[in-house]
Amino acid sequence: MRFFSDNAAPVHPKVMAAMQAADTIDTAYDGDALSRGLDARFSALFGRAVTVLWIPSGTAANALALAALCPPYGGVICHRDSHIQNDECGAPEFYTHGAKLMLGEGPGAKLTVDEVTRVADAIANDVHRVQPHALSITNATEYGCVYSPAEVAALGALAKARGWRFHMDGARFANAIVSLGCTPAELTQNVDVLSFGFVKNGGLSAEALVLFDPDLVDVTARRRKRAGHLLSKGRYLAAQIHAMLDDDLWLKTARAANGHAQTLAKAAEGRLINPVQANELFLYMSPDEAASLRAQGFDFYDWAAGEIRLVTHWASPQHEVEALARAIAAL
Amino acid sequence: MRFFSDNAAPVHPKVMAAMQAADTIDTAYDGDALSRGLDARFSALFGRAVTVLWIPSGTAANALALAALCPPYGGVICHRDSHIQNDECGAPEFYTHGAKLMLGEGPGAKLTVDEVTRVADAIANDVHRVQPHALSITNATEYGCVYSPAEVAALGALAKARGWRFHMDGARFANAIVSLGCTPAELTQNVDVLSFGFVKNGGLSAEALVLFDPDLVDVTARRRKRAGHLLSKGRYLAAQIHAMLDDDLWLKTARAANGHAQTLAKAAEGRLINPVQANELFLYMSPDEAASLRAQGFDFYDWAAGEIRLVTHWASPQHEVEALARAIAAL
Amino acid sequence: MRFFSDNAAPVHPKVMAAMQAADTIDTAYDGDALSRGLDARFSALFGRAVTVLWIPSGTAANALALAALCPPYGGVICHRDSHIQNDECGAPEFYTHGAKLMLGEGPGAKLTVDEVTRVADAIANDVHRVQPHALSITNATEYGCVYSPAEVAALGALAKARGWRFHMDGARFANAIVSLGCTPAELTQNVDVLSFGFVKNGGLSAEALVLFDPDLVDVTARRRKRAGHLLSKGRYLAAQIHAMLDDDLWLKTARAANGHAQTLAKAAEGRLINPVQANELFLYMSPDEAASLRAQGFDFYDWAAGEIRLVTHWASPQHEVEALARAIAAL
Amino acid sequence: MRFFSDNAAPVHPKVMAAMQAADTIDTAYDGDALSRGLDARFSALFGRAVTVLWIPSGTAANALALAALCPPYGGVICHRDSHIQNDECGAPEFYTHGAKLMLGEGPGAKLTVDEVTRVADAIANDVHRVQPHALSITNATEYGCVYSPAEVAALGALAKARGWRFHMDGARFANAIVSLGCTPAELTQNVDVLSFGFVKNGGLSAEALVLFDPDLVDVTARRRKRAGHLLSKGRYLAAQIHAMLDDDLWLKTARAANGHAQTLAKAAEGRLINPVQANELFLYMSPDEAASLRAQGFDFYDWAAGEIRLVTHWASPQHEVEALARAIAAL
Repeated sequence: MRFFSDNAAPVHPKVMAAMQAADTIDTAYDGDALSRGLDARFSALFGRAVTVLWIPSGTAANALALAALCPPYGGVICHRDSHIQNDECGAPEFYTHGAKLMLGEGPGAKLTVDEVTRVADAIANDVHRVQPHALSITNATEYGCVYSPAEVAALGALAKARGWRFHMDGARFANAIVSLGCTPAELTQNVDVLSFGFVKNGGLSAEALVLFDPDLVDVTARRRKRAGHLLSKGRYLAAQIHAMLDDDLWLKTARAANGHAQTLAKAAEGRLINPVQANELFLYMSPDEAASLRAQGFDFYDWAAGEIRLVTHWASPQHEVEALARAIAAL
Repeated sequence: MRFFSDNAAPVHPKVMAAMQAADTIDTAYDGDALSRGLDARFSALFGRAVTVLWIPSGTAANALALAALCPPYGGVICHRDSHIQNDECGAPEFYTHGAKLMLGEGPGAKLTVDEVTRVADAIANDVHRVQPHALSITNATEYGCVYSPAEVAALGALAKARGWRFHMDGARFANAIVSLGCTPAELTQNVDVLSFGFVKNGGLSAEALVLFDPDLVDVTARRRKRAGHLLSKGRYLAAQIHAMLDDDLWLKTARAANGHAQTLAKAAEGRLINPVQANELFLYMSPDEAASLRAQGFDFYDWAAGEIRLVTHWASPQHEVEALARAIAAL
Repeated sequence: MRFFSDNAAPVHPKVMAAMQAADTIDTAYDGDALSRGLDARFSALFGRAVTVLWIPSGTAANALALAALCPPYGGVICHRDSHIQNDECGAPEFYTHGAKLMLGEGPGAKLTVDEVTRVADAIANDVHRVQPHALSITNATEYGCVYSPAEVAALGALAKARGWRFHMDGARFANAIVSLGCTPAELTQNVDVLSFGFVKNGGLSAEALVLFDPDLVDVTARRRKRAGHLLSKGRYLAAQIHAMLDDDLWLKTARAANGHAQTLAKAAEGRLINPVQANELFLYMSPDEAASLRAQGFDFYDWAAGEIRLVTHWASPQHEVEALARAIAAL
Repeated sequence: MRFFSDNAAPVHPKVMAAMQAADTIDTAYDGDALSRGLDARFSALFGRAVTVLWIPSGTAANALALAALCPPYGGVICHRDSHIQNDECGAPEFYTHGAKLMLGEGPGAKLTVDEVTRVADAIANDVHRVQPHALSITNATEYGCVYSPAEVAALGALAKARGWRFHMDGARFANAIVSLGCTPAELTQNVDVLSFGFVKNGGLSAEALVLFDPDLVDVTARRRKRAGHLLSKGRYLAAQIHAMLDDDLWLKTARAANGHAQTLAKAAEGRLINPVQANELFLYMSPDEAASLRAQGFDFYDWAAGEIRLVTHWASPQHEVEALARAIAAL
């Protein structure tokens, strides 16, 4: 019974069916109708003209976004616990050609206007210091928390006022939307580039890089090619994304994942390190307790000394979730 | 009727079925059994211990190979008409952090020992000149020709003698193998890294990066992650490759593609710019003749003034190939 | 008797004296009065507002210029025999983060509008091909020839029409100016960045990077720091440049160097491979003849089979130049 | 009366004289006798065979050292307050092609074995996390403190045990040596590369990059060229270093600087934030007090709220130092 990662989730049958349906002789790269149709699809979703590039991985989507927003000699303010800092083996530094990540602190892996201001103001504005050029947040965060539309807008306004660009790592954007009950447009005010994740939520190998600034499109398309991410059979990636958007499948799968997390949260109330606002839970748990759960067949990640991480996803079997909830409650 | 590119080919039903079969909750990245099984599979195929990383695109496979073989301050000798020079938007320069491609000449996009020697000997061995560190060839070449095992071995021996590493871009390795009637082992003597292509030949999004030198494995695995090519649902990529190897599917599909090319070659005998040894044809053809073919419904690439390119693939409909052969013969 | 390189020249006494005069406690980096005075000095020289950064080497000046003008995913059209291609160990690729040099041909290491057009037009304008973003020429060229003001203007106009930026490597700009009898302004029409060399012409360690576009200043100042070229005792570099400009010392030293070259050219008339328009000569010469000169105490560079290079400089002893002229005539 | 930075110091007359003495026609780059003589000179000083490259700036020396010791996908553990992190505009990231600086804490800008262990042990050893490959310390530190030979050796032993390389930023190595009363050999046990500074201590534009590992020499020489730091008139840089070593001039000038700092330290005893072990002082000081000193003609750096930095150097006028000491005591 796996609660290790939502990356372990399978591909949704409708996504697989869409790939099957795309399986004909067609134009290579992103010249096919499915790929060309993404802009309109997402423009409708966000209520404004956007350009969308499919990208095979979230790491690449984030790194391409940062390369679009920050020059090699600049810096990106982000959270100390962010995925771009800890879990991408230096992809941001590779794609930006050596930009520096500037780390802020805060509970739930969330940055605040005050904290970002503190980080920035500690940097003398001279030629010797790397200057911040972009701000990056993750929503939902690496600790399963969400930024509200107002929080996002405030951080974006700060970025704008300082002359920085604004990136949102939305590997679990769907979970945040479902959790907040808001629209994609409401949650991306002032955002320049969004990495809109589908792979953890039912997709196979297609994230959507949403460019809100048309000036970034040509350059990012070239960088995608240069990085080897312009797959020749792109239609199968576009097909995945279309299937996820059809009938709001992406919201349904995220709702399932979040729901499972709430089931576990209720059973683990006294143990919660952070509020559970998406599909990840971080629990205080002794090594003995963790061993006991494992002995009952549950698989999960040891986060830190006395802490574990549980992740649910759209395909987590309901009975396994309930079994785990009972097991935690019984500890 | 599309003869534009083998990238337009669909995914083979057996590949699609293998992905479907892999569609369960499983370990992320490359920790699953299918991914872990690739080394043994390819070691058997090559008759020696190799390590294999799945890579979503040929561009990335080539660029990762070159980064493994050439430092930022080094050079890679390759053909002026090579894919790495012309068709990857600078991916080699990106992944190697600025290595220089050093261009040789020769018919059929083939390098010879003499030509490589000429290129290398023109470079003074001092600190002011970028020095060659690697040699890269494409087999089958960008002009649809093949290097024989003896030619590969001779170039590899030259590389070894000079202290260079040796890369083979095998985007159409299957077509070369079928054309030559040799084994993969025979065609990769002295090769350090092979980009073994499946996507043009029935796959969807998985090439095999074959590392013949165990010292390159850890570094290349890190670079793959850092480049965003360690997809979280890697089992679906590994599944594609296994399906291609099962029952020699990769040879069957390449045989079909090459066969179609021979059908066309026979009809175009006086027009052939290069010998047709794989699944690409380059023909002398006047604009009027090209227009006539297009008027009959055939789609293809204008290569240069008075030249066209035709590409066949495993799924090219037999009747379309025959129709095109007749149309060319009738010009 | 050294005719190997103008890099072997000593430092002019007035330059040394100016450094001595600057030898006091003062502001570090480029905050001193001498450094701050460069903009006005060069603005007067060029007859328009320019910004100037001192740079310790010509290689760095060129590489910083190219990094300012070409993105990592772009290309720079230059001559196959250019210094940036052959003699900087990949500095352009390092500073630009992997831009590609696109090589043209032509006698005297000179590019023409036709040749540049030919190189550019061979590149399909799609996402797979690196696109040219800049044009770089060397004046005087690596073969001791000069571009006239009209030739420079025409190449600059081509660059402008194509949307490229325009760089001039002026390691021997002074020799070109003296040879042509024109003004610096006349010789830099449409140029965006000029690497204005002083080190071969009497300086020690200060080239002037002349930025004609104010938008490039801040970024280039940061890149200079990031590359370790913002020396802490910058005033000693600025002092060198001021001394070279005082009383047109730079023209006097270049005139001496060019004059020496003409003395040699007259003696070598039938042997000249290129017209002698600056301070370098390339001569046809058999190995036996070269050995004979060497036996008489003359030191120089073997350029290619049957070819030698001679370089004069401001401090070449007159009697050595005349002795060499006699020796060549006597061969 | 300037106590702002030792970068404001003039060039020592003996250094200037040595440059003057080198002012003849000679071999370019580092082919001259002075440059070639550095290895022997430093091998004698360190009591073992070393290779030395002159480098025009400390930033470049550090960045070249890190590029030699850490791959693009690796990390360098250093102090949060280190020069390489804060004052080089990302030069380490540029030269290493995107390695990550991993920040430790500790008073006096000093790292301890425990702290470095803590930083390293927090990094999971998997493909997703950048792994440390090198450790870098500054001696004397950015806060004017020194690492003893035993402390250096212990950190070096830790690095060795972990498989990392070890770099020492010795911009003020002379001040540390004088302060500790030890030999250069004693202070560089286990060190792989030392940036040995001369510019703050009487030189003009030459630091010595000391390579203790012969395997690093060729690569670093190439990187120096590629970065534009192989100046064509290198003999004038080598001459500076020789002059600094002659008759232990480097120790005399450092002794003077450190002595001035002690004079100030005695006057400022209750205000010292760190022990004064080199030529920098960090004092608690209210804005009013700072204003009072400035009104008396003293120039210095406001370090943080309620803190100032004072720096002395070999040429700080004795009477100015005494005047400042009196003024501080009188506050």
